[in-house]
Amino acid sequence: MPTLSEVARRAGVTSATVSNVLRNRGRVGEETRQRVLEAVEALNYRPHLAARALAEGRAPTLALMVSSIANPFYPEFALAVERSARESGHFVIICNTNDDSIAGRAYLEQIAGNLSEGVLVMNANLDFDDLRATQERGTPVVLCMWERPGDPPGLPCVAVDFRLAGRLAGRHLIELGHERIGAIVGSKPSGIHAPRYAGFADAMRETGRKAYAKSKRHAPDTIAGGYAAARELLERDPALTAIFATNDLPALGAMHAAADLGFDVPRDLSVIGITDIQLARESRPPLTTVAVPTIEAARMAVSLLRELIERPARGEEPSALMCVTSSPELVVRGSTRSVSKKKRKES
Amino acid sequence: MPTLSEVARRAGVTSATVSNVLRNRGRVGEETRQRVLEAVEALNYRPHLAARALAEGRAPTLALMVSSIANPFYPEFALAVERSARESGHFVIICNTNDDSIAGRAYLEQIAGNLSEGVLVMNANLDFDDLRATQERGTPVVLCMWERPGDPPGLPCVAVDFRLAGRLAGRHLIELGHERIGAIVGSKPSGIHAPRYAGFADAMRETGRKAYAKSKRHAPDTIAGGYAAARELLERDPALTAIFATNDLPALGAMHAAADLGFDVPRDLSVIGITDIQLARESRPPLTTVAVPTIEAARMAVSLLRELIERPARGEEPSALMCVTSSPELVVRGSTRSVSKKKRKES
Repeated sequence: MPTLSEVARRAGVTSATVSNVLRNRGRVGEETRQRVLEAVEALNYRPHLAARALAEGRAPTLALMVSSIANPFYPEFALAVERSARESGHFVIICNTNDDSIAGRAYLEQIAGNLSEGVLVMNANLDFDDLRATQERGTPVVLCMWERPGDPPGLPCVAVDFRLAGRLAGRHLIELGHERIGAIVGSKPSGIHAPRYAGFADAMRETGRKAYAKSKRHAPDTIAGGYAAARELLERDPALTAIFATNDLPALGAMHAAADLGFDVPRDLSVIGITDIQLARESRPPLTTVAVPTIEAARMAVSLLRELIERPARGEEPSALMCVTSSPELVVRGSTRSVSKKKRKES
Repeated sequence: MPTLSEVARRAGVTSATVSNVLRNRGRVGEETRQRVLEAVEALNYRPHLAARALAEGRAPTLALMVSSIANPFYPEFALAVERSARESGHFVIICNTNDDSIAGRAYLEQIAGNLSEGVLVMNANLDFDDLRATQERGTPVVLCMWERPGDPPGLPCVAVDFRLAGRLAGRHLIELGHERIGAIVGSKPSGIHAPRYAGFADAMRETGRKAYAKSKRHAPDTIAGGYAAARELLERDPALTAIFATNDLPALGAMHAAADLGFDVPRDLSVIGITDIQLARESRPPLTTVAVPTIEAARMAVSLLRELIERPARGEEPSALMCVTSSPELVVRGSTRSVSKKKRKES
């Protein structure tokens, strides 16, 4: 990214003059002003927005791009980001892409660098090339919950070991004696939940079990998606004693499906999710889940983004850093139980 | 709000020159430029942001201020606002005040007029004086769901007849034969849910009943708040046959409390809410509620805000308009039922 002094050198003026032109301050002759603006354009210079914002009496702003504000995880994450950002005097503007990569690209083009000095990306279904282009235009980008710490994305990111989360969920069910376990994966086979399912399959393999392909369903990452997938699984194989879902929302849907088919959770069927959203605590029974460190991830993402924003001002290059959060942790609640002699009502 | 031509008159130049100065375009002598900037400052002129944004190749942006992104109603409303705004090429940036009026004021000062050309306010716990000041600085403000259509707030708004919503809920319970009805109000006595409770009390009065003060609880507008309030109500008076909550979240909490105390919903206890959030449809049993026209309110709010933004460009004065949405409607689901001979389990 070009610096203020490179612009000054090209325009043949001092840095102070460049700064005056950009801030509409001081007395600068019209010809000089034009020369500076041409140098700014030629070098594609973006002024340091935080500095400019402060000079103009505005607070600096970060953008948080999310894929679906209607999924309750995202508002929870947004809240955590906001709390961290507020500590350094940043405002957070939330941009909802609705899983639409074209809307996402438009947000990036319009907002990054204009309205915000940095961009946090939370599963916003954005093209990595677009994110790299944003970064190259001088606006740092941080991916907030990269799913594969062992496979860095080539962009600055906070990584969460979601494969471990899946493994912990699988192990918990195995330790409770479950053998016939259905799985609901809240993304496409190659999608963002793949590492979670891979972890679950690890747990099966490690204990000499197979994860049965027939007992796996891919479904939308929603309560309704989990409901439909669980109905299918349970109707096909009523002898299932547990369901693992790669996310809390489909796990909650699975509990509803079980109830409608006459299975009591946890007596007849154990259900486990991943994430630990607020609703997991508030469901009946409360959902056993593997909690991911949401607040920690938000704090790390804001802190990494701030560092990337401040680097160019210190003359340092931005780099593709990766921070890894602490490990996900099993939270046992009322929706899982040891396999017992089953007392299943007829549905 | 001062217009471009007033600025031009004061600076003794043409409107085109003012526009050139503000857009950093064309050749303007330094002295003239200073005179224009002084006139802009003296008159506290804010350029028409949409026009400026388009001239600069940016999309125009609206701000949506919400009080609590963690309450699932707000993301649903934000989604509806976004869809309407997108139709006219506007981006929506969501500003979460967390019920903090100081944060809200800071957002207004920093974002309104700088980052966005208009502000939508959804129960963001903001001081009306701050909103009027924002409006006077030239950034239109629209309140998105004013609760009292008969009592306009002196700011442009979309009003929803929430008193009618409360009345419809009360009537439904009365028609089902309920006499002993508890009420949970999700705000302080003078707070935003007061008209909803007033409507419920109307329904009681209209049918010759009293709304018993002893059977009313004020609680936080959350599932946990409704849970605690319903426990109190049911422990104090186990003969209650119905609970009216002024919002869906506390109604869902009331269903949980009923289950924990051994009351079957709807056999032993009917529960009704107001709003019709997604979770109302997804709860077990699904919640009977009075649906408010969220999508319509969002559409009206965006359309009113756009009109207010465009008025000054047409030389018209902004005014304190109020649009009223269509009426709330009862949606009967599984959580309410006629009073029958009660088969209540011992808790």
